[in-house]
Amino acid sequence: MGLMSEALTQILIPLAAFIGIGFALLQWFLVSKVRVSSGSNLVSEYNDKLIEEDEQEEGIDSDDVVAKCADIQKAISEGATSFLFTEYKYLGIFMVVFGAIIFLFLGSVKSFSTESEPCTFNKEKICKPALANAFFTTIAFFLGGLTSALSGFLGMKIATYANARTTLEARKSIGKAFIIAFRSGAVMGFLLAANGLLVLYISINLFKLYYGDDWEGLYESITGYGLGGSSMALFGRVGGGIYTKAADVGADLVGKVERNIPEDDPRNPAVIADNVGDNVGDIAGMGSDLFGSYAESSCAALFVASISSFGSSHDYSAMSYPLIISSMGIVVCLITTLFATDMFEIKNVTEIEPSLKRQLLISTVLMTVGIAFVSFFALPSEFTIFDFGSEKVVKNWHLFFCVSIGLWAGLVIGYTTEYYTSSAYSPVQEVADSCKTGAATNVIFGLALGYKSVIIPIFAIAASIYVSFSLAAMYGIAVAALGMLSTIATGLAIDAYGPISDNAGGIAEMAGMSHSIRERTDALDAAGNTTAAIGKGFAIGSAALVSLALFGAYVSRAGIKTVDVLSPKVFIGLLVGAMLPYWFSAMTMKSVGSAALKMVEEVRRQFNSIPGLMEGTAKPDYATCVKISTDASLKEMIPPGALVMLTPLIAGTFFGVETLAGVLAGSLVSGVQVAISASNTGGAWDNAKKYIEAGATEHARSLGPKGSDAHKAAVIGDTVGDPLKDTSGPSLNILIKLMAVESLVFAPFFATHGGLLFKLL
Amino acid sequence: MGLMSEALTQILIPLAAFIGIGFALLQWFLVSKVRVSSGSNLVSEYNDKLIEEDEQEEGIDSDDVVAKCADIQKAISEGATSFLFTEYKYLGIFMVVFGAIIFLFLGSVKSFSTESEPCTFNKEKICKPALANAFFTTIAFFLGGLTSALSGFLGMKIATYANARTTLEARKSIGKAFIIAFRSGAVMGFLLAANGLLVLYISINLFKLYYGDDWEGLYESITGYGLGGSSMALFGRVGGGIYTKAADVGADLVGKVERNIPEDDPRNPAVIADNVGDNVGDIAGMGSDLFGSYAESSCAALFVASISSFGSSHDYSAMSYPLIISSMGIVVCLITTLFATDMFEIKNVTEIEPSLKRQLLISTVLMTVGIAFVSFFALPSEFTIFDFGSEKVVKNWHLFFCVSIGLWAGLVIGYTTEYYTSSAYSPVQEVADSCKTGAATNVIFGLALGYKSVIIPIFAIAASIYVSFSLAAMYGIAVAALGMLSTIATGLAIDAYGPISDNAGGIAEMAGMSHSIRERTDALDAAGNTTAAIGKGFAIGSAALVSLALFGAYVSRAGIKTVDVLSPKVFIGLLVGAMLPYWFSAMTMKSVGSAALKMVEEVRRQFNSIPGLMEGTAKPDYATCVKISTDASLKEMIPPGALVMLTPLIAGTFFGVETLAGVLAGSLVSGVQVAISASNTGGAWDNAKKYIEAGATEHARSLGPKGSDAHKAAVIGDTVGDPLKDTSGPSLNILIKLMAVESLVFAPFFATHGGLLFKLL
Repeated sequence: MGLMSEALTQILIPLAAFIGIGFALLQWFLVSKVRVSSGSNLVSEYNDKLIEEDEQEEGIDSDDVVAKCADIQKAISEGATSFLFTEYKYLGIFMVVFGAIIFLFLGSVKSFSTESEPCTFNKEKICKPALANAFFTTIAFFLGGLTSALSGFLGMKIATYANARTTLEARKSIGKAFIIAFRSGAVMGFLLAANGLLVLYISINLFKLYYGDDWEGLYESITGYGLGGSSMALFGRVGGGIYTKAADVGADLVGKVERNIPEDDPRNPAVIADNVGDNVGDIAGMGSDLFGSYAESSCAALFVASISSFGSSHDYSAMSYPLIISSMGIVVCLITTLFATDMFEIKNVTEIEPSLKRQLLISTVLMTVGIAFVSFFALPSEFTIFDFGSEKVVKNWHLFFCVSIGLWAGLVIGYTTEYYTSSAYSPVQEVADSCKTGAATNVIFGLALGYKSVIIPIFAIAASIYVSFSLAAMYGIAVAALGMLSTIATGLAIDAYGPISDNAGGIAEMAGMSHSIRERTDALDAAGNTTAAIGKGFAIGSAALVSLALFGAYVSRAGIKTVDVLSPKVFIGLLVGAMLPYWFSAMTMKSVGSAALKMVEEVRRQFNSIPGLMEGTAKPDYATCVKISTDASLKEMIPPGALVMLTPLIAGTFFGVETLAGVLAGSLVSGVQVAISASNTGGAWDNAKKYIEAGATEHARSLGPKGSDAHKAAVIGDTVGDPLKDTSGPSLNILIKLMAVESLVFAPFFATHGGLLFKLL
Repeated sequence: MGLMSEALTQILIPLAAFIGIGFALLQWFLVSKVRVSSGSNLVSEYNDKLIEEDEQEEGIDSDDVVAKCADIQKAISEGATSFLFTEYKYLGIFMVVFGAIIFLFLGSVKSFSTESEPCTFNKEKICKPALANAFFTTIAFFLGGLTSALSGFLGMKIATYANARTTLEARKSIGKAFIIAFRSGAVMGFLLAANGLLVLYISINLFKLYYGDDWEGLYESITGYGLGGSSMALFGRVGGGIYTKAADVGADLVGKVERNIPEDDPRNPAVIADNVGDNVGDIAGMGSDLFGSYAESSCAALFVASISSFGSSHDYSAMSYPLIISSMGIVVCLITTLFATDMFEIKNVTEIEPSLKRQLLISTVLMTVGIAFVSFFALPSEFTIFDFGSEKVVKNWHLFFCVSIGLWAGLVIGYTTEYYTSSAYSPVQEVADSCKTGAATNVIFGLALGYKSVIIPIFAIAASIYVSFSLAAMYGIAVAALGMLSTIATGLAIDAYGPISDNAGGIAEMAGMSHSIRERTDALDAAGNTTAAIGKGFAIGSAALVSLALFGAYVSRAGIKTVDVLSPKVFIGLLVGAMLPYWFSAMTMKSVGSAALKMVEEVRRQFNSIPGLMEGTAKPDYATCVKISTDASLKEMIPPGALVMLTPLIAGTFFGVETLAGVLAGSLVSGVQVAISASNTGGAWDNAKKYIEAGATEHARSLGPKGSDAHKAAVIGDTVGDPLKDTSGPSLNILIKLMAVESLVFAPFFATHGGLLFKLL
């Protein structure tokens, strides 16, 4: 037994969750102090004006601008809310159907018998019937789905609440705007981390009321939580990704390229859809995604732990090690956030990126200490871990290394991503330079940059896999993934900061604010592109570790002892698995392309048929564009979603557990490369374009200004990168995670009834 | 024992090789009847004129045009010869150094002892010393390298001999031009297939003089032949690929985009370099590549056979089954060729592609009969195959299925490739259509097309792996690869046809021939783009099977019983291996990009500084552009070459045989996807552009004509596709094959001394 008692554990975990939620609410309160009103509330407007008059630098038409901002924010918020409600309505139907499938498949393992059975791993003990596991897995699946939807929804609400406020603060100073955007990101980060932890903690304790001492069954059922979270995340990412990029590409192709009007110009009919898209895609999608990773890595770790010595000796504190790590993470991130919000002040554009980078470094250093602390107090000094049929002896400081290497690998991935996507370094500058010879060389250099950017992250992931696997088998991988995700609150904060700044810029443009304000929001946004890429890097890196951990848990649960590449069953799985990311990307990219074409036609139609639109005397019909994006994304998310959800079911049922193991390994090792290269290529193109537009260096000015041939080439690269970095790339994390967690949940079924085709032959 | 005696086998194999060589010479003779002279030889020119006067349609300035063609041909031929000589000079040094490494590494296995040892697999027998294997492997390595260089060089010579002749024949009719281009392709196809077979056959028989009954050692040494062939192919592909695309991209960016002059316009200073590049890249590179695949699959099959019952019972005919299959292939392809050259006549542009497709179908059907014949006569009705430590009982008709499924999988891959890259079908038409909204959507749709095009080939490869592996373990895979390559003569003929037609078009443009002739060569070339893509599809598909077979042989030789994904050593290998194709592609694409930028600068410089160049009154300085391409390709081929050559050595020496096995499997399953998608994307963009230019349908005309916005967008896609389809994509086959064959050759060393790092820890 470790030094921490069960009672203390039972207190500390919810305490950390409540601290996180409280801190998020505090940040929200601070953000809400910036008043945005649409003219009806005179008192608050008056107060607002008083505040502004102290510090404001450019206060021209203050009333009018505030009212405009409020209107735009309202439009964006309503569009996003309406889309998410529609999306969740469809996903609700999907959840019910898929929940029924889970129940039926898992119930059929022991033919719906209600009698208790000997446990799968600990044969001497008696466990609850398979039917109960089927029932509770289904419940956990619903809980995961609900929490995921809630996470995405809350994130979107906060972001749409914050974007106009960021714009208004940008009138005062860049530092103030930065703080608002960053605080809003923190609201989302802390709410998600705390919420995920709390729901998981409550579910385990409630399930325990039924399961009692049957921890095998308990933690097997809990895996449904990960599946639910990830299923919602898949559709959120894919649907949101198609939505946002259809609007973005469509708006840019007509607005920027054909009509030569600025980005986010209010005359562009697709501009509201574009801004709504940022919130439903980048914010809600990313929130669901990282919540899914967090839920899955916790579930994978808990499942492996439950069939290890913690589980058989019923050591609750040690068993809850993954949850305690996450609790510690919330506290560490809270301290880290104070560094950004209270200890330094951003005075200059060039300080933004270093400040965000510093967040990563501070949280990583502090968390390393935190991990040491938790590993020493929560764990017994020595214990055994289930290792594919055998038992591996592990010491508590081994787990310290496992969690820490995951954490530091995350930092390495984050910094590498920054290097390849920030215009401060040579890779993006070279891409920008290649625009001199046109769009073709820009695309060639951008693709090459993305390919090259996978090298270091892959070595970082490989090193953490090797170390954590060698020290603590699959449990080591699972806690390494948790280590990478332990600073999720900070990661999400700096990630959500990106789209919030992007939207703030959009609102500034639409509200007709002055050029210098737009420049400030652009600077915030450029840093945001990099942090968004960093966030994606984290999401992908952690997805790789998480899905490997889930893969290990699946293999354990399915009773496979080796996954031998030399067996044809496994090898063809590996080959086909490695193909799936391509199939999936083809679907999502083409969806974006087709939806964008529709959007282009609509935008062109409006420009041609609405008199006075170009002159700014008539208002465009935003609603039709919103509808095109909504319809396209809801329709187009079905085929890629079906591909991901059905592959494990088909492979497991017809080809058996070994082929499925091959498919999972193949999609993992191939998908992670496609995902990293796609998101970094896109990020680099976006920032190469911004680099030319900003013209901050001699070199950048030689390529610009806006409208030059090099800039036009850069815009083409940026547009190509949009679906890569915001639709297909980030959705691939979910592909590899979701297939793994689905396989884990259905493992009992596949182990009993799977491999029909080979049985028939 | 089978029905075929050893004596008959000893006669039939060289006989088939000589028939192939004879047939190639006959085709060459027929091509040579078209006279090309540069004005000095009056008699032949007179004859030439007589011939032409019978049939010629447009005979304006016949003397002048013929002389011009001859001059251009001479310039291209000299440029290509000079580049290949320079390249081979450097590669000669590499071969000597790497040969020494092979000798030293393999000699060190038993500390350079000259005493005979018990055999590795058949412990009761005595085998030759490891030092002898080291020596003969090195010799075989040199032979493979020489044969590969010879194959590439001969192919280039034939192609440069044929291109002007094709142009001249195009003045008469499209059918005549087609026949010349096709016959020239056949010369290359048959020479390569026959040559490869003959050198391998002679080497085996000469080595046997020393080895006698030690077949284990004999066929282990022969694997050096595959390594030599593939090493040369790697540098040929990469160097040639960089050469050709630097010139092509550079020429297009300034000529087509900036100066608005046609492709292959003689005023463009990079035009000769571009045409030289087609010959050294697409022809010599492809020749070396497919020869390498052929050599490797034969070596893999022979090695596995030597440690199976054929080897221990010294059944020479059964042992030579792979060679007899190839012999039959030559005969089948000979008959197939007659269908194209003598039985049908091309009268219309639309008949070209079906005629080439028919070649594939005819050769596949005939070869299936041939395989049945060979399997029945050469093999005993039942025998055992080495299966990672155990023995698998196999019947002769099992092998018939293994070879046939490889053959038919090749056809499926070929037809799928055609579907995705030919403008006759909807995928390319959709890509062309997306050009309406600009280059960005074109690139998005093109990338999506490439991703999608991997699905069917992967399922075809997976099916053939499953069937052939289940029936005859790794030997099944090796002969399946041979099956796919058995019609290599036809495959190469239709593949080489592409660049020959491309060059013919270039010569027509440069010689100032009329528009209608250029239209004919363009039609030949459009079909050529598709057949080139088909050829690449074959090369990739066979590379996948070949490298799996080599992987199996390596695993057998290294004494590994299982390659377990659940072992961290293997998994990190798998992950890093899957990353290598990206690293490699990043290098090659960036090399092309940088070299193209240099070329752009030089071409711009010439246009700006040579007075009268744009007006056509002054000649450009072709030689400087040739030099830029040469220098760039020789310099830039070193890093990617080193990556491929060093990875197995580093992984094997420091991380051991298991990690290396993971690396091979990872690079195989990931590389094949990148390679297929890259080459199909590039092919589709090229043909989308040609589709718009040709304007053959209502839809195509709505996008065109040349110079329209949609056409400009299509040109950008085409340029991006160039390095994908002609440099990085096709080089990846070699990456996966070469790492596997290198691992096989060094397996004795790794098994003895490998894994230093893990031993130290």
